[in-house]
Amino acid sequence: MTISIMQFEGEKKTPSEVADVTLKKEEDEQQRRYYSTSFREERDTFGPIQVPSDKLWGAQTQRSLQNFDIGGDRERMPEPIIRAFGVLKKCAAKVNMEYGLDPTIGEAIMKAAQEVAEGKLNDHFPLVVWQTGSGTQTNMNANEVIANRAAEILGYKRGEKIVHPNDHVNRSQSSNDTFPTVMHIAAATEITTRLIPSLKFLHSTLESKSFEFKDIVKIGRTHTQDATPLTLGQEFGGYATQVKYGLHRVACTLPRIYQLAQGGTAVGFDVKIAAAVAEETDLPFVTAENKFEALAAHDACVETSGSLNTIATSLMKIANDIRFLGSGPRCGLGELSLPENEPGSSIMPGKVNPTQCEALTMVCAQVMGNHVAVTIGGSNGHFELNVFKPVIANALLHSIRLLADASASFEKNCVRGIEANRERISRLLHESLMLVTSLNPKIGYDNAAAVAKRAHREGCTLKVAAMDLGVLTSEEFDTLVVPEKMLGPSD
Amino acid sequence: MTISIMQFEGEKKTPSEVADVTLKKEEDEQQRRYYSTSFREERDTFGPIQVPSDKLWGAQTQRSLQNFDIGGDRERMPEPIIRAFGVLKKCAAKVNMEYGLDPTIGEAIMKAAQEVAEGKLNDHFPLVVWQTGSGTQTNMNANEVIANRAAEILGYKRGEKIVHPNDHVNRSQSSNDTFPTVMHIAAATEITTRLIPSLKFLHSTLESKSFEFKDIVKIGRTHTQDATPLTLGQEFGGYATQVKYGLHRVACTLPRIYQLAQGGTAVGFDVKIAAAVAEETDLPFVTAENKFEALAAHDACVETSGSLNTIATSLMKIANDIRFLGSGPRCGLGELSLPENEPGSSIMPGKVNPTQCEALTMVCAQVMGNHVAVTIGGSNGHFELNVFKPVIANALLHSIRLLADASASFEKNCVRGIEANRERISRLLHESLMLVTSLNPKIGYDNAAAVAKRAHREGCTLKVAAMDLGVLTSEEFDTLVVPEKMLGPSD
Amino acid sequence: MTISIMQFEGEKKTPSEVADVTLKKEEDEQQRRYYSTSFREERDTFGPIQVPSDKLWGAQTQRSLQNFDIGGDRERMPEPIIRAFGVLKKCAAKVNMEYGLDPTIGEAIMKAAQEVAEGKLNDHFPLVVWQTGSGTQTNMNANEVIANRAAEILGYKRGEKIVHPNDHVNRSQSSNDTFPTVMHIAAATEITTRLIPSLKFLHSTLESKSFEFKDIVKIGRTHTQDATPLTLGQEFGGYATQVKYGLHRVACTLPRIYQLAQGGTAVGFDVKIAAAVAEETDLPFVTAENKFEALAAHDACVETSGSLNTIATSLMKIANDIRFLGSGPRCGLGELSLPENEPGSSIMPGKVNPTQCEALTMVCAQVMGNHVAVTIGGSNGHFELNVFKPVIANALLHSIRLLADASASFEKNCVRGIEANRERISRLLHESLMLVTSLNPKIGYDNAAAVAKRAHREGCTLKVAAMDLGVLTSEEFDTLVVPEKMLGPSD
Amino acid sequence: MTISIMQFEGEKKTPSEVADVTLKKEEDEQQRRYYSTSFREERDTFGPIQVPSDKLWGAQTQRSLQNFDIGGDRERMPEPIIRAFGVLKKCAAKVNMEYGLDPTIGEAIMKAAQEVAEGKLNDHFPLVVWQTGSGTQTNMNANEVIANRAAEILGYKRGEKIVHPNDHVNRSQSSNDTFPTVMHIAAATEITTRLIPSLKFLHSTLESKSFEFKDIVKIGRTHTQDATPLTLGQEFGGYATQVKYGLHRVACTLPRIYQLAQGGTAVGFDVKIAAAVAEETDLPFVTAENKFEALAAHDACVETSGSLNTIATSLMKIANDIRFLGSGPRCGLGELSLPENEPGSSIMPGKVNPTQCEALTMVCAQVMGNHVAVTIGGSNGHFELNVFKPVIANALLHSIRLLADASASFEKNCVRGIEANRERISRLLHESLMLVTSLNPKIGYDNAAAVAKRAHREGCTLKVAAMDLGVLTSEEFDTLVVPEKMLGPSD
Repeated sequence: MTISIMQFEGEKKTPSEVADVTLKKEEDEQQRRYYSTSFREERDTFGPIQVPSDKLWGAQTQRSLQNFDIGGDRERMPEPIIRAFGVLKKCAAKVNMEYGLDPTIGEAIMKAAQEVAEGKLNDHFPLVVWQTGSGTQTNMNANEVIANRAAEILGYKRGEKIVHPNDHVNRSQSSNDTFPTVMHIAAATEITTRLIPSLKFLHSTLESKSFEFKDIVKIGRTHTQDATPLTLGQEFGGYATQVKYGLHRVACTLPRIYQLAQGGTAVGFDVKIAAAVAEETDLPFVTAENKFEALAAHDACVETSGSLNTIATSLMKIANDIRFLGSGPRCGLGELSLPENEPGSSIMPGKVNPTQCEALTMVCAQVMGNHVAVTIGGSNGHFELNVFKPVIANALLHSIRLLADASASFEKNCVRGIEANRERISRLLHESLMLVTSLNPKIGYDNAAAVAKRAHREGCTLKVAAMDLGVLTSEEFDTLVVPEKMLGPSD
Repeated sequence: MTISIMQFEGEKKTPSEVADVTLKKEEDEQQRRYYSTSFREERDTFGPIQVPSDKLWGAQTQRSLQNFDIGGDRERMPEPIIRAFGVLKKCAAKVNMEYGLDPTIGEAIMKAAQEVAEGKLNDHFPLVVWQTGSGTQTNMNANEVIANRAAEILGYKRGEKIVHPNDHVNRSQSSNDTFPTVMHIAAATEITTRLIPSLKFLHSTLESKSFEFKDIVKIGRTHTQDATPLTLGQEFGGYATQVKYGLHRVACTLPRIYQLAQGGTAVGFDVKIAAAVAEETDLPFVTAENKFEALAAHDACVETSGSLNTIATSLMKIANDIRFLGSGPRCGLGELSLPENEPGSSIMPGKVNPTQCEALTMVCAQVMGNHVAVTIGGSNGHFELNVFKPVIANALLHSIRLLADASASFEKNCVRGIEANRERISRLLHESLMLVTSLNPKIGYDNAAAVAKRAHREGCTLKVAAMDLGVLTSEEFDTLVVPEKMLGPSD
Repeated sequence: MTISIMQFEGEKKTPSEVADVTLKKEEDEQQRRYYSTSFREERDTFGPIQVPSDKLWGAQTQRSLQNFDIGGDRERMPEPIIRAFGVLKKCAAKVNMEYGLDPTIGEAIMKAAQEVAEGKLNDHFPLVVWQTGSGTQTNMNANEVIANRAAEILGYKRGEKIVHPNDHVNRSQSSNDTFPTVMHIAAATEITTRLIPSLKFLHSTLESKSFEFKDIVKIGRTHTQDATPLTLGQEFGGYATQVKYGLHRVACTLPRIYQLAQGGTAVGFDVKIAAAVAEETDLPFVTAENKFEALAAHDACVETSGSLNTIATSLMKIANDIRFLGSGPRCGLGELSLPENEPGSSIMPGKVNPTQCEALTMVCAQVMGNHVAVTIGGSNGHFELNVFKPVIANALLHSIRLLADASASFEKNCVRGIEANRERISRLLHESLMLVTSLNPKIGYDNAAAVAKRAHREGCTLKVAAMDLGVLTSEEFDTLVVPEKMLGPSD
Repeated sequence: MTISIMQFEGEKKTPSEVADVTLKKEEDEQQRRYYSTSFREERDTFGPIQVPSDKLWGAQTQRSLQNFDIGGDRERMPEPIIRAFGVLKKCAAKVNMEYGLDPTIGEAIMKAAQEVAEGKLNDHFPLVVWQTGSGTQTNMNANEVIANRAAEILGYKRGEKIVHPNDHVNRSQSSNDTFPTVMHIAAATEITTRLIPSLKFLHSTLESKSFEFKDIVKIGRTHTQDATPLTLGQEFGGYATQVKYGLHRVACTLPRIYQLAQGGTAVGFDVKIAAAVAEETDLPFVTAENKFEALAAHDACVETSGSLNTIATSLMKIANDIRFLGSGPRCGLGELSLPENEPGSSIMPGKVNPTQCEALTMVCAQVMGNHVAVTIGGSNGHFELNVFKPVIANALLHSIRLLADASASFEKNCVRGIEANRERISRLLHESLMLVTSLNPKIGYDNAAAVAKRAHREGCTLKVAAMDLGVLTSEEFDTLVVPEKMLGPSD
């Protein structure tokens, strides 16, 4: 096999043609991006630039938009980051008023920031994740939007810089400490308001099922082979414990997420703003013990992502078990009936595809992948600033959201409606050869082994084999073989 | 440290209150999702269901929408999948007409499918990635949208099933072979129309730079320490080679992507539809050699993702080098000047943040993470059907798009404008102690070592040290030390 | 939850006590490492150092041994690297003789290097993987051992430097291009002599099984649910195809592995040495097209590791299927009997743990992990030299060896002996409700659905249900329901 | 490019020749493996088997040895697992004596197990990691070795089963709960005795350096560009904080590692054995709250591996910074001098390769890879038993050992000896244009910007530029520009 760049040269288009196509594409893109025929001029130190009139953002946002045409609208900075910027800027204005910020301006900023915090201005945050690695372009986006909106609130026009993005909205903050601050605000908020509630629901429902199924004795399976019986309740109890520990795991990482990187040019600003954010969010944020660490590394995010990775591991196991235990209807294990949420097969009753398990396990795969992205981003920082902040924030928040939503969907559309196929479970249990160990004490190991071998060879039950061999009567067998007494976690 | 579930139990809300909140959230979501006050009734085997009047989808899509409320709109099935469904359904209708499909209906389907292929009906594909693992709900979404749209084209109303989603649009196709088929169509299309052109541009620009810089001799760096000189052109030539091989790598995987899973209930349908798709896309698709493998595994996607992972490895290296070589302006290496696309520091000239390098390396981190997601999804299939199809498709297409766009942005906004700081490069080179090895032949190893040691101790140049030690005159030194003659790849 | 460093401070030992312990540990380690009471003195530019008399290595090896006490003996540089150094040094001596190396010395080096190539001097390569990132300490280890051994061959004593490690053994080579060269020699050798033969064996056995099982019709399973029948031969044919493509995948990456980084101070040395290595190994090595790329990046290794990752994905799927199809003996799917290689359960016949599947899937997990390690190492190179060479080489070779050995073990101890449980397969197939679709043409959809529903509700076969409903006679049913005619890859 | 299996068929060897080669290889391997000419016969339920006379293992170990010829001796089960089996079996004998085990036998088992715990019988544990996924073959290895050794202690011969591997050594334990128990014992022991001490040392040395460097003001670097000054002490303080949090992180996961899976056929055995292990190891082990979870999942290991992954992230950052800050000697940043542990360049003084940084970052790459292996293994368990136990244990213990040793080596051979190049640091700081911001208050923004621009254009210092422009005198400049007053974490 010869490897030659030639294979790429044999195409019809010349470089300039390709360039033309690219240019065309760029123009189309510009059109699409601006989707506006009316523009106003905004300025930064680079000079003037046209901004769509109906948008609140300013010059720096516009520049980033043009410089980072990567991935399209799906790749916009995640909403929890935008909302957290709203929270931070509101709190900053509040604290800055203590340090001398004009209250009229301060109040207007607070109102505008509140709108950002509530997600009302999402359309004014067009920047993608794949921008400067410090995320400061989104900080400027927040400053510009809030400044323009605050100006409007005060009765002025956008673009006039009555409220200044840097001097007022970004006051006391440096360009580098805001983004790491909102990373932590967003992560903590999403974990506590989305993920933990969803996991608690799931845990609670699994526990209910464990209680509901506590008397159903079933065959155990180790190495995917028949093994010592246990109850279906014990099986679900294992799942519930996994989820409970998952809650512990993510909770263990929060103390480091609650540390905020936000410093401040004014003495004491850092402590006050952490307190303000804590009050605003009702979460125990504090100022970071070491600000240098907080900008230069994002180990706390890597750690939290690690806890999500472990939760994904647990959920993958649980969902896999449930789909296998629900496999069938005739040719699988068939111990569980999963709720039927959509048509499986038009003609074949009982074919219920475990679609919720599938969605959840796919989510788990993505969470494990995102964890690697977070790890790589976290390990590649240099000197005073890690510049993989947006990819870390995005992957972490993506994982939180997916795990939260998929757990909730799984709980609601699957676990809650699972039913045990008692008859099938009982039949499998009693057909099993594992029960032979109950015969040992009475008829001895050798006879017991003979019974098992005969049953295996003949394809009959142990009882029939024992009776055929004349070592036990039917009554004796029933007295000896009581699966309920054999329960245990192992082979 | 005691870890207790108690910490989750001490909250104010009772389960029923939480449930209420959840319910409220669900209602809001429903509202938001339907964003419509007008509905029509659609039916499937499950019964009737309300569908927003302004949407073309039908009952099964609506059910999936309600059952998989995971991740929000950002998580919709990626557009290249939707477009590929357009291509496939158009081709299927075309081939089906050969097998007896009513031409009136067939032509209408082809027109409707063409609209899907062009992205005109994207708003009618609301389903998220996190659905059934076979992706068949999106297949039904395509069937329903195309059926309703084809009906409209024929002058009928949506919902009347004049054109039937299953009997007409999905004709000859099974519910399981369409999605793997569009996975390959979408991947091949995105690779050939987005990724390869972007990488070729980048390769070409790097080669141009290699030529432009071919006479600039500079210090080499191994172990991040000063080493044997090379030319800046050679350094960029290394980068160009990496990108060239990246093109080879992804090209090597295409033969297996060009295999389509699409089977067919009619004899020969599989071969004909692959031919039709090949004609439609101008790409050499063929029917898969082994259809069982094509449904049960997605090794081809894992392999292709592996080639993207390698490309990400290359680009990470290149972008890291460029940002370090451009570090400064005063206290870094300062050998390169990167184009200034946005304000770095308002007051400090020459501080140009390597933001394009940052965006690109962040993309690389995500591509490496996505590769793990694809690998996990690919390895967890069972029996006749891998049910991690949507996550595999999504992560693969995400990686392709990000690499393509970020390479293009990097080429356009960074590499193209890189300039060599010839003076700085020359100064560093001539200050280096590495040049001492040139003295060996003339003054012997011991004297050369003495010169180097003195230069190191005194912090002076080799030339000054040699003259101070009286072993060489200025002219002799200049004759001997010609970095251009020392070029080599290594220490 | 307060997290405090206090918990680490409350221990009994003071720092100096800890230091003592450490010192003690270090002494013990020294003892263990040298396991020798007799020493000779060796020198390098750092000065003299004691080396165990019974070892062939010299000063630089000894220093590395003491500086990198990481991981213990298990972490020694992998044997294929050592052997490849033997090959390289032998070839270098051969080519160097063409360039004027004293033939007496050259021949002695060739003999000594041959011993290294054959693994006879493994005990003289004590250095661990976790050393300098260029791997040059192992290059010096090879130089020192070969020099001392060549001296012995010539009748001199070790340590006298009659044959000089640098001037003779390392002649024409730089300290940076040998290690990347042996990485490729070792990888290519291990792939062609271990991995490819093992995979071919596995492929061939899977194909044989596919042929052996070609007439066994069985239930298909999609979403782990009962689906359209297929033959067991088709199922194994899918596995065989996966392995075949795996062979293609790894073969596709070899052209870039066959490129050797080895440059040379003498003109033409690079081409000649690649030719010599090619002759010695019977593999088509060539000199690398771009030496700068070959030292600065290891994309070729990342790419090849990617192909192993894909192979691991395939094998994980195959082994998972086989263990599930072999699950039972009574309460699983039970379609396959796996060979019994060790006692499963002393008393329970038929319980055969799928231990070969377990070993293989564990290997796959490690290979996927190693791939991430290779990727991270590959992406973190800087400037003219990637300094993650040993971890890349080690992880890559580890993956090759594990996949090769585990595939061979799986083939020999599992696949070769797999038997189909024809009776069970047939019973499951005929119990399945999937066959109902065969009734459609004769009795119509509605009747067929009624039959299926009755069978599902009553837990009886379709045949009984059809007869109970009076829609078909036994003979009619048997004529209609012929699973052999329903074969297909999908639902 | 045609892809055909043909390319594999063109080789010289026929299948039977290949088979012969394989056979030959197998024989050689057998020879090598047994390395013994004397054998004794041991038996299990499978029948008799020859075991090397000089080895203590029995039939089941021998069988596993022959069935799992994967990876060679390097892949033997890690020593901490073997030692932990010694601990467990000793404790089991102790507790079993309370439950009626013959004290003579019990005491002999305790003595034999103690030898295993001390690593004295390592040579008798030949099994590799890649065996049954439950690890029970290594449990049997432990049972057999301890039984035979205990018999010897009692004056009997090995192989006579005076002390029975199952009835005595494995008494009260099931085949499935011992391995997960030793996984936790081994992990906890390695973490507390190796990893935590090494990290504490590193933390302490980094803190000392932070104190030592507390007055050295230096240029900061964000986006790899010159930024606000900070002290070198603050930079090292950031590293120290990262390591301190790393200690917290791994400590947070220990409560779940301290839970032991060991159940027991006797009532109360589980609690007593956990207490015995706690006493024996001086670590707070308890019996697992939920034994089902403890066998079916290894989330605790995934979680702990996640904490190692985060520590690797931190160490990668620290080592990267240190190597870049130490880059040079002339053409890099040159702010730090790293200790010279081995010859860097024979002739060039001051070239000190950061080899310890390289070893450490390579270890970090492997730890991140191992984490993925652990995650994949952890997520792929089914039903009552996760059968990826050995790969999980091996990768986790590998990571612990590598991180511990590499941290210790890094501390001892690098960090401890780092010196600040005060002159260079000062020169870079004062050459920097960042200091211009100090001029603002005095000469205004416009003048300050003009000074910076001139300095940048002319390549001169700010001071010279300010004097040239006549805006400041030398004295005024020196009064204004005091980097010590500009310290801060950000740009």
